[in-house]
Amino acid sequence: MTNPLRHPEDRRLPKIAGPCSLVLFGITGDLSDRKILPALYDLASHGLLPPSFAITGVARRLKVPLEELVEESIRNFAQTPFDQRVFDQFMGSISVVMGQYDEAKTFQDLRDKLDELDEQQGTGGNHAFYLAVPPDLFPTVLTQLGEAGLSEHPEGWRRVVIEKPFGHDLESSQELNDLVTEVFAPEDVFRIDHYLGKETVQNLLSLRFSNELYEPLWNSDHIDHVQITMAENIGIGSRAGYYDGVGSAKDVIQNHLLQLLALTAMEEPVSFSPHDLRQEKEKVLSALDFFGPVDQSAIRAQYSEGWQGGKFVKAYLDEENIPADSVTDTYAALRLAVRTRRWQGVPFYVRTGKRLARRVTEIAIVFKRPHFLPFEQRVTAGQSNNTLVIRIQPDEGVTFRFGVKVPGASFNVRDVTMDFSYGHAFTEYTPEAYERLILDVLLGEPPLFPQQKEVEESWKILDRAFEYWDTLDTIDTYPPGSWGPLSSDHMLARDGRAWRRA
Amino acid sequence: MTNPLRHPEDRRLPKIAGPCSLVLFGITGDLSDRKILPALYDLASHGLLPPSFAITGVARRLKVPLEELVEESIRNFAQTPFDQRVFDQFMGSISVVMGQYDEAKTFQDLRDKLDELDEQQGTGGNHAFYLAVPPDLFPTVLTQLGEAGLSEHPEGWRRVVIEKPFGHDLESSQELNDLVTEVFAPEDVFRIDHYLGKETVQNLLSLRFSNELYEPLWNSDHIDHVQITMAENIGIGSRAGYYDGVGSAKDVIQNHLLQLLALTAMEEPVSFSPHDLRQEKEKVLSALDFFGPVDQSAIRAQYSEGWQGGKFVKAYLDEENIPADSVTDTYAALRLAVRTRRWQGVPFYVRTGKRLARRVTEIAIVFKRPHFLPFEQRVTAGQSNNTLVIRIQPDEGVTFRFGVKVPGASFNVRDVTMDFSYGHAFTEYTPEAYERLILDVLLGEPPLFPQQKEVEESWKILDRAFEYWDTLDTIDTYPPGSWGPLSSDHMLARDGRAWRRA
Repeated sequence: MTNPLRHPEDRRLPKIAGPCSLVLFGITGDLSDRKILPALYDLASHGLLPPSFAITGVARRLKVPLEELVEESIRNFAQTPFDQRVFDQFMGSISVVMGQYDEAKTFQDLRDKLDELDEQQGTGGNHAFYLAVPPDLFPTVLTQLGEAGLSEHPEGWRRVVIEKPFGHDLESSQELNDLVTEVFAPEDVFRIDHYLGKETVQNLLSLRFSNELYEPLWNSDHIDHVQITMAENIGIGSRAGYYDGVGSAKDVIQNHLLQLLALTAMEEPVSFSPHDLRQEKEKVLSALDFFGPVDQSAIRAQYSEGWQGGKFVKAYLDEENIPADSVTDTYAALRLAVRTRRWQGVPFYVRTGKRLARRVTEIAIVFKRPHFLPFEQRVTAGQSNNTLVIRIQPDEGVTFRFGVKVPGASFNVRDVTMDFSYGHAFTEYTPEAYERLILDVLLGEPPLFPQQKEVEESWKILDRAFEYWDTLDTIDTYPPGSWGPLSSDHMLARDGRAWRRA
Repeated sequence: MTNPLRHPEDRRLPKIAGPCSLVLFGITGDLSDRKILPALYDLASHGLLPPSFAITGVARRLKVPLEELVEESIRNFAQTPFDQRVFDQFMGSISVVMGQYDEAKTFQDLRDKLDELDEQQGTGGNHAFYLAVPPDLFPTVLTQLGEAGLSEHPEGWRRVVIEKPFGHDLESSQELNDLVTEVFAPEDVFRIDHYLGKETVQNLLSLRFSNELYEPLWNSDHIDHVQITMAENIGIGSRAGYYDGVGSAKDVIQNHLLQLLALTAMEEPVSFSPHDLRQEKEKVLSALDFFGPVDQSAIRAQYSEGWQGGKFVKAYLDEENIPADSVTDTYAALRLAVRTRRWQGVPFYVRTGKRLARRVTEIAIVFKRPHFLPFEQRVTAGQSNNTLVIRIQPDEGVTFRFGVKVPGASFNVRDVTMDFSYGHAFTEYTPEAYERLILDVLLGEPPLFPQQKEVEESWKILDRAFEYWDTLDTIDTYPPGSWGPLSSDHMLARDGRAWRRA
């Protein structure tokens, strides 16, 4: 698909994939509703989808008509405003195959559908399978795809997209990997971590490695500790079926937060190639350990009932379909160490939770206080540690907190912030993570997503946390709208530190 | 004047001096008009002047009635809005002694006036003499003050305030110092450099030394070069009499810019005491040298005629009272070196000029490019050196320029800025430099102003520049509204660098 009018070095124009289709397992699910369908619509609005692109949903049943389901999703979650003309065209590309995931007939129907697309729309056997279904269905769907002969094609390509969590512990992740790679070639497996879209990875690494100001300070000489947070202010919503038994640590820390940690802590890669990047991330994850005994470095908790944002909300245990004795964590925090020269003595605190004070994903690099301050103690008493905050969402950007003199006749230093926001600095359309991810899948671009080795190293840490948590009979609670349980505050307080509240 | 209701550690309340008066030589001059009278009015508005404070102007003649002169000055230049009630009270504290500065009678009249104040307003012999007159009058006024016995008082204090330039070369600065210290005790001499008010000094040093982020990078390993700029967009106005024969290098570089350089380059002081600070500044100034041969490291120029801001403005040589063959510099730039381990190989470019593109005083720390960039060359092609800009005026604050990834599917790094502004961050009333300076004089607070040794070290550099310039028959020119002469751009271009335009 080379454009003769375009210089091969010219990356200004967006790349568009050749003819192909996307098969969406779980088109009626939460992930499709909130992320995938809106992203596809946004791509369509910006003319970034291939010519004669088609979407084939696979679902067990439709509670509402397909058009209504899609329109609802787009109106609620798409970035671009609803446009009837674009929508009609978009709807025209979507069809649904109905059936159970464990029945061969469903996959024969799907096969007929894809053959039809190849014939009528020239998709040439190029199809990506997006498994937007609960992970316990992965084995079923993968096996059926294999048995129906859908995982390879003599002329076209076949790719499979799986969403985290990749298994629920080390063992199951290995089983899942065996299963997937039995059906699909390893290079055709796209493990999606939407917090880890290329955009975030590239932002983080260009910030660290294209500037002189940060890297020389990026070590235990100057950094006191690191806080990585992914907080949500919502509860589990309608995800009870998926969520219970999984919980926040497996849902968020194992993948998103440990990947962010790896990008924050890794050494400079030889290049930005997926291979070189992966190598450095793997090294960090292999060097990961708890910072002190596990029972003092792993906190889990559930939200209790209470008022949040003017609304009285249920406790986790009172949510629909949650067993009364569930010990699934809706909040988890780990105190980790990276066993390398660079990070000796620097704790990495990671936390995630639902029903917290606000929605934010960020990496906070908290610098040491200067070893010496040539001021009277009183002058700098109001100052805290310099902090560099890399905001991932919402309002992606960078904030730096440092001390300056308060104007006026007295001499006091107080913290102020400098801020950079992608949204304010650039007028370029910023694609959502899912848009970039879907484009990469369709283009077959080498993914920056975690590879199996990284997944396994992350599970090793999580398995150790659960080994400890499984010995406990109870689980801490925290009020909705708070920043988590007291036990988590205490974990940092014992180190003479505190979680960021901002 | 201890306030029994106030804890001695409590610095929140502004300190107010005891009863005293200020004698203003040159009350009809430019400096009084633009700076001193407005600052005194602002202090009065904020209730920061001592009880029963009095101002006594000394002038050779009044072209307009005193009240008109003061009102004009305040309406034009005071920070606080004009308030008739405050103004009336303020005017009530001002009187004028008329006379020639070289006549003993003038000083006898002044003496009578001060005795009257002591008697009627209880100023107790506490009087500060502000020499807001051209420097060639300093000897006359100082001698007369001494002869009239005004430079000391058995009960009260006497202080003298002199403005830069402190002499016009090393020799004359030593003569001036001898003269001043013959009349006044050294600790009663306040050399004022209004760019160097405590506020600026304390801001700069708290930025450098209260934060962990800056100091570890503050050396030749990480800094490529430093640019210190004081640009004015106005011409010499009515200052021809003072300006010609002095010029921008002596008027600005010798004092303001070399002091800013000293504060930027100095090692950490043992404490913030005036003694310890002065010691470190002196060390830098003693280590100052040209960066390469003087004839390739010193540029001077005059502004030519042309359009600036929609107005056609005169060349310097066509300004009133400027001799047609004047070679006085209205622009000067030096390329300097600080001969210390910390700054080996780092040029300090300093420049000042009138009729430049805009009014700005700033210190720009330009960092090196990272020694290695793990990106394809194309990715970082649009990025320049990380730069930390300490803005001194207008809009005092800090800006940091660094590279981030441009959002979107292509991978490019572009420069963005983070900004902190005192004016936006603090609601505290920010006193103008002159307000702080006058307060410090009245309070007798140890000045952070340059001491004689620093003045002398600065003159040594200037003397070397003038030694070279005196061998030239011609002087470069630059158009009004530009950033100076081409020769200055070339000086940096030869080093592979460029002056900041922003």
